[in-house]
Amino acid sequence: VTDPEHIVICAGFAQGVHLVLRALAETGLRCVAVEDPGHCETRTVSGMVAAKVTPVPVDAGGMVVDELRKTAAGAVVLTPAHQTPTGVVLAPERRQALVDWACRAGATIIEDDYDAEFRYDREPVGAMQGLAPAHVALLGTVSKSLAPALRLGWIVCPPALTAGVAKQKQLADHGSPGLDQLALALLIESGRYDRHLRRMRGVYARRRARLKNALAAYAPQVELQGLEAGFHAVLQLPAEADEQGVITAARERGVGLYPMSEYRAGGQTTPPRLVLGFGNVSDDAVERGIARIADLLRGSG
Amino acid sequence: VTDPEHIVICAGFAQGVHLVLRALAETGLRCVAVEDPGHCETRTVSGMVAAKVTPVPVDAGGMVVDELRKTAAGAVVLTPAHQTPTGVVLAPERRQALVDWACRAGATIIEDDYDAEFRYDREPVGAMQGLAPAHVALLGTVSKSLAPALRLGWIVCPPALTAGVAKQKQLADHGSPGLDQLALALLIESGRYDRHLRRMRGVYARRRARLKNALAAYAPQVELQGLEAGFHAVLQLPAEADEQGVITAARERGVGLYPMSEYRAGGQTTPPRLVLGFGNVSDDAVERGIARIADLLRGSG
Repeated sequence: VTDPEHIVICAGFAQGVHLVLRALAETGLRCVAVEDPGHCETRTVSGMVAAKVTPVPVDAGGMVVDELRKTAAGAVVLTPAHQTPTGVVLAPERRQALVDWACRAGATIIEDDYDAEFRYDREPVGAMQGLAPAHVALLGTVSKSLAPALRLGWIVCPPALTAGVAKQKQLADHGSPGLDQLALALLIESGRYDRHLRRMRGVYARRRARLKNALAAYAPQVELQGLEAGFHAVLQLPAEADEQGVITAARERGVGLYPMSEYRAGGQTTPPRLVLGFGNVSDDAVERGIARIADLLRGSG
Repeated sequence: VTDPEHIVICAGFAQGVHLVLRALAETGLRCVAVEDPGHCETRTVSGMVAAKVTPVPVDAGGMVVDELRKTAAGAVVLTPAHQTPTGVVLAPERRQALVDWACRAGATIIEDDYDAEFRYDREPVGAMQGLAPAHVALLGTVSKSLAPALRLGWIVCPPALTAGVAKQKQLADHGSPGLDQLALALLIESGRYDRHLRRMRGVYARRRARLKNALAAYAPQVELQGLEAGFHAVLQLPAEADEQGVITAARERGVGLYPMSEYRAGGQTTPPRLVLGFGNVSDDAVERGIARIADLLRGSG
């Protein structure tokens, strides 16, 4: 829900969140809330701009808004469509509670529309931005849908913040490359971008199904968590498992996994969970990889 | 004088100076010296990163290094090849004095290699970076030589600063677009970039000559200052002239000029001078423009 003049083109999510936070800092922002677990770079970037960064817990319904309300945050960065890394979606009542919080506190929701295009089980949920355009900065990117090397994204700004965000973009790099923007516009206008998304949804859905089947076959004790969406999945290990031990052993066998503890503000390791990306590997590699580390996942490696 | 691993690709000068200053700030930089007159954006960006920005005067020999020595600056941003906006070159003894200052103070010289490729009267002077690779961060860009819309530049880092600059680039935007870099590499390797530079040197030299001839014909009282280089020139007006008055009147006649006062840290207007860009107008437009405002330049408008 916006007009073209409130969209600022940027170099993907990393820069987008930086620019919005800097624009907010110019208007007095002191404290930023982030998801826990969440993307560690978001914590780093928030800490570069704001005096305080407050982690807010995420459960099966997404960010716990009751906990957010207890903070002094003037902005929150979150991934409502498909939480990074847990893979849950923000529950409908939480979405409304979040919007109510932003309106009452005069706060800004920085919505990372991270892989919202890649839901495999149903139509994606709408962006929160549509619920409260004056309080949400919506960040989108083609880093996942096309390629990270393109470095193209966009910020749908709350109208009162557009000039500030545009100023920060100007100061940061004088704008994103023009030819790349024209090429992307052509791709979108021609309908090929939509066709690409539809095709890739099928590719990634099939790959996720292969992952699920491989787990059922080789390590049925391990729970695959999160939505049927995106390019990563979360595996919950038996309670006594050692995240870092499994990861180190898997790496020695040529299989790359990430520990959930890396995404935790406090580095906690319970319950032991692994984050597993399947976006840039082949269907066969997913299955071979699970087979190769099945004993580790089962806790018998 | 560097190795490929000490070059960080960035989005042009604007971002380059930002990244180098942020990397220096992480190591304790508090005060940055800038040229006066100089690029006002450099002052703004320096002020976003460092606690203090100190303007240092520029005379016919470039930055006055004796004045720089009196400051507490831990870094200086300057345009030695062709000073912006005065158009002078940093004198040989000043170059050496600047390097001595940097070595003794443990300071960093941020060298904007702004339009060094576009000298029309002789071979361009070498970059200062070659004199003291451990103390100079050299910034280059294709914004002037190809097009600003490309947003591609490079930072030749002092080796001790490379990791810090690369980290800041990663945090800022995860790197510059890959396809654009590959296209530029191809252009350079094929020899076409060099051919383009040679051709454009002729085009701009001819345009500057047209400007000089037009001034001699229509406003011989006005002095054309600065090197035969780049895409802008400085006109010194009669002492009693009013910079802003001339600019406003010229704009009403469709001719765009800039006041030197815009480049002064303190906004001073003496002696009255105009900055005039000829990079993106046709040869004919340069001559027509001067003819159209000749009375204003002569002080009789």
